[in-house]
Amino acid sequence: MHVTDGKAGRQDRPGKFYNGRIMPTALVIGAGDSLGAALARRFAREGFETCVARRNADKLQPLVEQIAAAGGKAHAFGCDARREEQVVALFERIERDIGPLEIVVFNVGGNIRFGLLEMTAQKFFKAWEMACFAGFLSAREAMKHMASRGRGTLFFTGATAGLRGGEGFSAFAAGKFGLRALAQSTAREFGRQGIHVAHVVIDGPIDTPFVRERLPDMVASRPADGLLQPDDIADTYWAIHQQKRSAWTFELDIRPWMEPMTTF
Amino acid sequence: MHVTDGKAGRQDRPGKFYNGRIMPTALVIGAGDSLGAALARRFAREGFETCVARRNADKLQPLVEQIAAAGGKAHAFGCDARREEQVVALFERIERDIGPLEIVVFNVGGNIRFGLLEMTAQKFFKAWEMACFAGFLSAREAMKHMASRGRGTLFFTGATAGLRGGEGFSAFAAGKFGLRALAQSTAREFGRQGIHVAHVVIDGPIDTPFVRERLPDMVASRPADGLLQPDDIADTYWAIHQQKRSAWTFELDIRPWMEPMTTF
Amino acid sequence: MHVTDGKAGRQDRPGKFYNGRIMPTALVIGAGDSLGAALARRFAREGFETCVARRNADKLQPLVEQIAAAGGKAHAFGCDARREEQVVALFERIERDIGPLEIVVFNVGGNIRFGLLEMTAQKFFKAWEMACFAGFLSAREAMKHMASRGRGTLFFTGATAGLRGGEGFSAFAAGKFGLRALAQSTAREFGRQGIHVAHVVIDGPIDTPFVRERLPDMVASRPADGLLQPDDIADTYWAIHQQKRSAWTFELDIRPWMEPMTTF
Amino acid sequence: MHVTDGKAGRQDRPGKFYNGRIMPTALVIGAGDSLGAALARRFAREGFETCVARRNADKLQPLVEQIAAAGGKAHAFGCDARREEQVVALFERIERDIGPLEIVVFNVGGNIRFGLLEMTAQKFFKAWEMACFAGFLSAREAMKHMASRGRGTLFFTGATAGLRGGEGFSAFAAGKFGLRALAQSTAREFGRQGIHVAHVVIDGPIDTPFVRERLPDMVASRPADGLLQPDDIADTYWAIHQQKRSAWTFELDIRPWMEPMTTF
Repeated sequence: MHVTDGKAGRQDRPGKFYNGRIMPTALVIGAGDSLGAALARRFAREGFETCVARRNADKLQPLVEQIAAAGGKAHAFGCDARREEQVVALFERIERDIGPLEIVVFNVGGNIRFGLLEMTAQKFFKAWEMACFAGFLSAREAMKHMASRGRGTLFFTGATAGLRGGEGFSAFAAGKFGLRALAQSTAREFGRQGIHVAHVVIDGPIDTPFVRERLPDMVASRPADGLLQPDDIADTYWAIHQQKRSAWTFELDIRPWMEPMTTF
Repeated sequence: MHVTDGKAGRQDRPGKFYNGRIMPTALVIGAGDSLGAALARRFAREGFETCVARRNADKLQPLVEQIAAAGGKAHAFGCDARREEQVVALFERIERDIGPLEIVVFNVGGNIRFGLLEMTAQKFFKAWEMACFAGFLSAREAMKHMASRGRGTLFFTGATAGLRGGEGFSAFAAGKFGLRALAQSTAREFGRQGIHVAHVVIDGPIDTPFVRERLPDMVASRPADGLLQPDDIADTYWAIHQQKRSAWTFELDIRPWMEPMTTF
Repeated sequence: MHVTDGKAGRQDRPGKFYNGRIMPTALVIGAGDSLGAALARRFAREGFETCVARRNADKLQPLVEQIAAAGGKAHAFGCDARREEQVVALFERIERDIGPLEIVVFNVGGNIRFGLLEMTAQKFFKAWEMACFAGFLSAREAMKHMASRGRGTLFFTGATAGLRGGEGFSAFAAGKFGLRALAQSTAREFGRQGIHVAHVVIDGPIDTPFVRERLPDMVASRPADGLLQPDDIADTYWAIHQQKRSAWTFELDIRPWMEPMTTF
Repeated sequence: MHVTDGKAGRQDRPGKFYNGRIMPTALVIGAGDSLGAALARRFAREGFETCVARRNADKLQPLVEQIAAAGGKAHAFGCDARREEQVVALFERIERDIGPLEIVVFNVGGNIRFGLLEMTAQKFFKAWEMACFAGFLSAREAMKHMASRGRGTLFFTGATAGLRGGEGFSAFAAGKFGLRALAQSTAREFGRQGIHVAHVVIDGPIDTPFVRERLPDMVASRPADGLLQPDDIADTYWAIHQQKRSAWTFELDIRPWMEPMTTF
């Protein structure tokens, strides 16, 4: 396993020694089977001890085993990212038991679509809780630990709906717009403290079983790489993390080559 | 009092007869002492029977009396715009007892400013509840009653923070970004059903006692019209309401002439 | 004819006396048969001595006669807005012979559509010359005369293509994006000197013979007010001009009620 | 020298054989001493036969020698990117004599700053000619050769002024806004033909002798990596070029960690 040093030189890099090497630590919150898993695999491959969190920790077992089989190191955590005490505890435990966090990704989804008259208060609330409130909790806890070290990368996974309030997307877009606001505000406060904050706008369908089942005609009309491949998206997260701090990116869009550009 | 006919010809205009004239109905949710009151006065002056709502109905008495003294007709309603049952009841009661709503303004504020590490979950939630969730409830109830009539105007009062996540504004901006998303989504769904949805970006300080007290140096450095005058803002809401449906505006900014433009 | 006083009180209003009344002066550059003519009629109706300019002055005769027949006062000027000396001379002559300009509208079009490989350098240049360079000349000359008076309104007629570079629109969008940049830059420099600069985004088809001929199916699928009616657009320019300087708008979109929102 | 294969597998990669290896071809138009040179060095280091063009070919000699000394292969071309025939000839000659272009970067600058009243028509025109018109010529010629192959990357180097018309920047912003429009339009037309088009927003000062001389106080107030380092920016261009076509980025911003975010 190749051990990279993240943002800075080896001598000042946080991390723990394993067999004489330092492993930095990463955390993916919302480590679903698609993008979240791909990010975790990628960070593990780059030498990170990778923590993955989702509501149901049992569902993380295949991912942890897959990473281990590839020679990486991963830890699964059950965490409802909407619950403050759980998020606080997650960060504390990782920082205490695993290592200082070098990368944190907030990758929780929450897409729903209903006409406004069918949108219940509960649905509207839940979409926001997942897309925005959980993002706030993650961002605050990440900054709490990272800021004093003056280093680290915090990613927010955004969506088309973070820039465009489409019909039927009042709840999801309100959440994702809110997440983008949070990302901007966090970048403005902590960028000059040495924390790299980035908002990645996923503007197209990711190749998941769910998309394949729900949009069979769209999927059939495209070649395989006409859908977003999670591992390919992960390449870009990794490239953003590797940027030197003289030249950081805050926001970028990602879409398949044949996808209409809807965020411009 | 001059009675205007809002969006369409007299013959098909909703409203009730008073002394042989039809008065259309307007509602301002978040009718504070500043912009909300100015909007209410303006609609009343244009011949609307004007409903004003805020949490504490007692505080609305001076406004109602001021409107009555000027020859207008106003009704005060106590309503916590964050409570679904109260918002549902407010719209039902007005539609049943006063008249079909022709204008609805969502004008609830909620500005707070804290560094991210000082932002509690409760504060973050409350800012969203006021700025965004209450807006959703108001929009849904407004559409519930207006959509079948295929006419009416729904305003959202936005802010700089709806387009820019400034440092310290994570909560307020997340709420206002969310409100803007909701406005776009609502416009996309109901515009083609004949409802005019508009999002007004207030990009500058309104001339209020609060601003005068908190930012005395800024206020002292400007002439009176260097701050946003509520009655002047109300002119623009009224102009937007009067737009023919062949030429509707969805979004516009409003700022004092000497204010730096921060939303572009 | 009712004489309004534009932005300020009568006592300090520029203009000339006609039959004991002061008439302020307006200028529409690019006074075509559609929006430009509607703006001129509107300003004339509000009491402005209205100057209209287009390349071929002969084509302006019907408009001048129409305005005169309605009791207004209009003057036609032949001017190629892309020629510096002609634009300079136009402003000088109006300011000297007619009166101090209170409203200037830059309304030159220039829409063309070609695939990039079919776009000649000449076409690309001409689209920019009309959409952007002519706008610069008009803006500079307007500011040259207005700035010292610290009052007046300068409108730029924008388009969807000013915010979105659609396929085939490389030249027109490059021009209209450029015009929007110019509008922002002009607003930032002259707003705090008391000049109201506004950029109006026309986001939909205007009801013109050209549109009716070229897009018959689209036109047939809509009611009359499903297309932008020039007189209805003019209402909004007028409302923007009337804004008090405590509460100015820089940018707003205008589209028919049933038009998809493409600029958000 | 390590030879990478750009966007696709070795077997279908364009390029020429050199000592038994295929070298793909890159072109940087506007290869100044700062970012342009860094991009050229980077592409050469990645195994590209790198063509560099600027008005005065003599000034390119040190760069070509530097690349050769590092084991790379570079060619200098004198080309005024504002002259159609020169741009057409440049692409034809490279495609014929060097190899099929895999990467093209349009990196011409043109920043000027004047108050609107001091802006001459000539200055306004020249800023546009460099920032926008030259970009159009480069884009069209690049697409002419790349489109039929269905592969390749076209970069546009953008700027803060491409998203924000600051005071005094009417000419530069009009040009850079126009370039962004062109980039969007090109991406929309050629993205689905397999060409990766990207617009990189440089939002901050690059560490150049010119910046150090003109803004000494700003420079003195920052650590070295408080200015954009050209080589660090080049990392991101390279990462964008390496993106798989399932997950392409169209636009991203780049700024130093301590730079205020002005494009959001």
